[in-house]
Amino acid sequence: MRTEPTAPAAPAPSAVPPRGPVTSASYSITVRLDADVDPASIGRIATAVGSAGGAVTAIDVVESHTDAITVDVTCSAADAAHSQEMVDAIGAVPGVKVRKVSDRTFLLHLGGKLEVASKVPLKTRDDLSMAYTPGVARVCLALAEHPEDVRRLTIKGNTVAVVTDGSAVLGLGDIGPGAALPVMEGKAVLFKRFADIDAWPICLDTQDVDEIVRTVELLAPGFGGINLEDISAPRCFEIERRLRERLDIPVFHDDQHGTAICALAALTNALRVVDKRLDAVKIVVAGGGAAGTAIVNLLLTAGATNVLVWDREGILCPDDERLSPAKQDLARRTNRGCVRGELPDALDGADVFIGVSAGNVLPVEELARMAPRAVVFPMANPTPEVDPVRARQYAAVVASGRSDLPNQINNVLAFPGVFRGLLDARATEIDTPMLLAAAEALAAIVRDDQLNANYIIPSVFDSAVTTAVAQAVAEAARASGAVVELPGRPGLSD
Amino acid sequence: MRTEPTAPAAPAPSAVPPRGPVTSASYSITVRLDADVDPASIGRIATAVGSAGGAVTAIDVVESHTDAITVDVTCSAADAAHSQEMVDAIGAVPGVKVRKVSDRTFLLHLGGKLEVASKVPLKTRDDLSMAYTPGVARVCLALAEHPEDVRRLTIKGNTVAVVTDGSAVLGLGDIGPGAALPVMEGKAVLFKRFADIDAWPICLDTQDVDEIVRTVELLAPGFGGINLEDISAPRCFEIERRLRERLDIPVFHDDQHGTAICALAALTNALRVVDKRLDAVKIVVAGGGAAGTAIVNLLLTAGATNVLVWDREGILCPDDERLSPAKQDLARRTNRGCVRGELPDALDGADVFIGVSAGNVLPVEELARMAPRAVVFPMANPTPEVDPVRARQYAAVVASGRSDLPNQINNVLAFPGVFRGLLDARATEIDTPMLLAAAEALAAIVRDDQLNANYIIPSVFDSAVTTAVAQAVAEAARASGAVVELPGRPGLSD
Repeated sequence: MRTEPTAPAAPAPSAVPPRGPVTSASYSITVRLDADVDPASIGRIATAVGSAGGAVTAIDVVESHTDAITVDVTCSAADAAHSQEMVDAIGAVPGVKVRKVSDRTFLLHLGGKLEVASKVPLKTRDDLSMAYTPGVARVCLALAEHPEDVRRLTIKGNTVAVVTDGSAVLGLGDIGPGAALPVMEGKAVLFKRFADIDAWPICLDTQDVDEIVRTVELLAPGFGGINLEDISAPRCFEIERRLRERLDIPVFHDDQHGTAICALAALTNALRVVDKRLDAVKIVVAGGGAAGTAIVNLLLTAGATNVLVWDREGILCPDDERLSPAKQDLARRTNRGCVRGELPDALDGADVFIGVSAGNVLPVEELARMAPRAVVFPMANPTPEVDPVRARQYAAVVASGRSDLPNQINNVLAFPGVFRGLLDARATEIDTPMLLAAAEALAAIVRDDQLNANYIIPSVFDSAVTTAVAQAVAEAARASGAVVELPGRPGLSD
Repeated sequence: MRTEPTAPAAPAPSAVPPRGPVTSASYSITVRLDADVDPASIGRIATAVGSAGGAVTAIDVVESHTDAITVDVTCSAADAAHSQEMVDAIGAVPGVKVRKVSDRTFLLHLGGKLEVASKVPLKTRDDLSMAYTPGVARVCLALAEHPEDVRRLTIKGNTVAVVTDGSAVLGLGDIGPGAALPVMEGKAVLFKRFADIDAWPICLDTQDVDEIVRTVELLAPGFGGINLEDISAPRCFEIERRLRERLDIPVFHDDQHGTAICALAALTNALRVVDKRLDAVKIVVAGGGAAGTAIVNLLLTAGATNVLVWDREGILCPDDERLSPAKQDLARRTNRGCVRGELPDALDGADVFIGVSAGNVLPVEELARMAPRAVVFPMANPTPEVDPVRARQYAAVVASGRSDLPNQINNVLAFPGVFRGLLDARATEIDTPMLLAAAEALAAIVRDDQLNANYIIPSVFDSAVTTAVAQAVAEAARASGAVVELPGRPGLSD
């Protein structure tokens, strides 16, 4: 079924103001330089950085002498080449000699981003005798007798293992477990910052499904939850399914379910803006991998009825024998009419585009094929499927993963609150009603009087987010009954 | 070969003063009670606790009214039954009503003893963009290109996995991975407190050697060292051996090598006190398990020539076919003369007794069989092989695991410094010269002008210990060549 392109009802294309390179703190460098004491020197340096398209964010005088000063100039660049251009521009300023260039992102990572802290004092022999031997033996014996108390008397009650095999790290692909570690550390930092959860990275030196499943199963006793991360599809589906069957703690693959929760929440609010109903809209999802599959599953459960999925093979179609079993399954649950074609064909008359595929796969003009008051979420990172700025010419609501534009859809809106709720409820598993509850709670944070096309999803720094998501998930977990009840113990409960 | 008992040259037995129950903070309880405002009430409570053999360590008034006060009385007991006696004694004081009894050791364990802390700020979007996406991607790519930098740019450079299967936890036996977690947390607390190392507990839900080896191998990428803990013999030997073959990070079984380092250091100094040489003394080791085997191995490497090992089967003898392969091997390397007999027989003419077996296996009088100026280390926990107080009647130097007596031999003297040194040197393995270096450094902390029979080993709170051990181990590691050299990187090294 292919319809003719419809005229866009969105605002007619208008001239987009020229944009300089988008600089980012992630490419921030600090240039240590010697300069003449000429008062104009600093000004010339700032001008040089500006001329190179950069931005000076800090200037610190490190040493000062009668005839020369040493200065640290910190500036943001757009990428590595741009950093070098700025260094060259600074070095070309008369009277300036560059001594050293430091990369602030790399400096931040020196020594890693996590540490383990003790929650108990350890100053005296008495402290030792309670936290370690001989006192700890009594706690061990109590746990041997009442295993359920492990969640009360150990770190298990507040810990999550962030597990990866390094096979699909960010958009970087299969870089292996060691190179993936900075991402897992960052995830643990986010768990702590946003939900006070103690997460620890587990980077596995195998990509074998059986081995990953068995390893996670074996180390599960010390954790209250498992967050699978950056494991490539379709292996991630089987790993998650088998772990869920075997473990008595929740298993959550953030790339799937975190993304799905955020996408559903954003779509819920976008449909509030354009006044359409989920069960009536035509939705196109670009990308049939981990994220796309989970998004489709959650959309269908939430009531969506008309979904097409596009991937490398074209629109996923049940009778396409080239498809992997996972994609065939996805096609069967979406494209019953066996629509064939490429991504632009799928967009004919669509109300919603959700992209979790790759950068620049969609010429922006093709958005004109969509229905009036279209919703467009090009979420591929770091480069979206279609330029979100230009997409605004065709769509009523645009959201993306970009932090420098409105409506950033970021998984940190979901996973901290989800696990906070699971741990608070002492959940033994996570199910679809809990995911839906998280998405509803996340969407509901944006009140009617706040909602507009540029504000369909709250900021990651909105402190209400984690609390609201956690409460909703904990309630859903308790309602499911899949929680551990801890009996009262004399002397332990107030 | 059995010699006749020799007369003890140690001081003749003298009357030992009667001792009340040894109370410990590890059995500390807090009793919340209501009492009359009668000023004598508090005094009567303290008297009651004292009469029951306990000690009041704190009294806090929680509430005060005109006719009654609520008080928290904290006291140390000897064991659980003793705690109850004290509670009963307090309840019997006229005008006192016990409201609640809290166990301070259990309260200390509520919620676990560890947390994960972020070493990087995460307040602004710029912070996020450097610690997480998109900035982190650059660090990942750099690590994919230069894998050795994982030790520089991630937590790997300062982390240790504390791995157990819960099969031999303290003296409690096979209590399983969950019940073992408080000990592993305590170990991580000690790692942090004494060596600023970030250790994380890994409690494995299997006791199969192949599975343990494979699991540790798979999760090794995220850690700079492996500390095996409380894994029963003889499985621990094979697990350690196979992991050492496979991993490029050091693998250390603390129950073996930590104990051996401490025992050798203590023995070195005890022999300084009694003026005997290691290569000339007869040594009896009680216990042929993990600790005993490692002690014997280190003693032989350090120069000991005359060692007998005793265990359940009697003195381990090479031609005893009942012995396990591990014990046969131990017998072959010690008892070449095929001496047979029980522990007292082994002690005939011995200069040194080292016990790592079980409580009360040796009647104190049997120590009279030992040579003059004997050295006795009954190290079994919590109950030593022979009462260390009474042993002083027969031996010139006594040391034990007891924290309430002089010369406490405690593994915390060794493992923090050992791993600090290994991590500082970026060691890829640990070998016997490193263990010997650790023992020598630990012994050398006690200067000649400090050394005496009551001070052969420093206090665990002596801040010089970790530094000295770490330096010695790092030097030995560098000398071995088994270290990772990190090339300089522009912008990363000052």
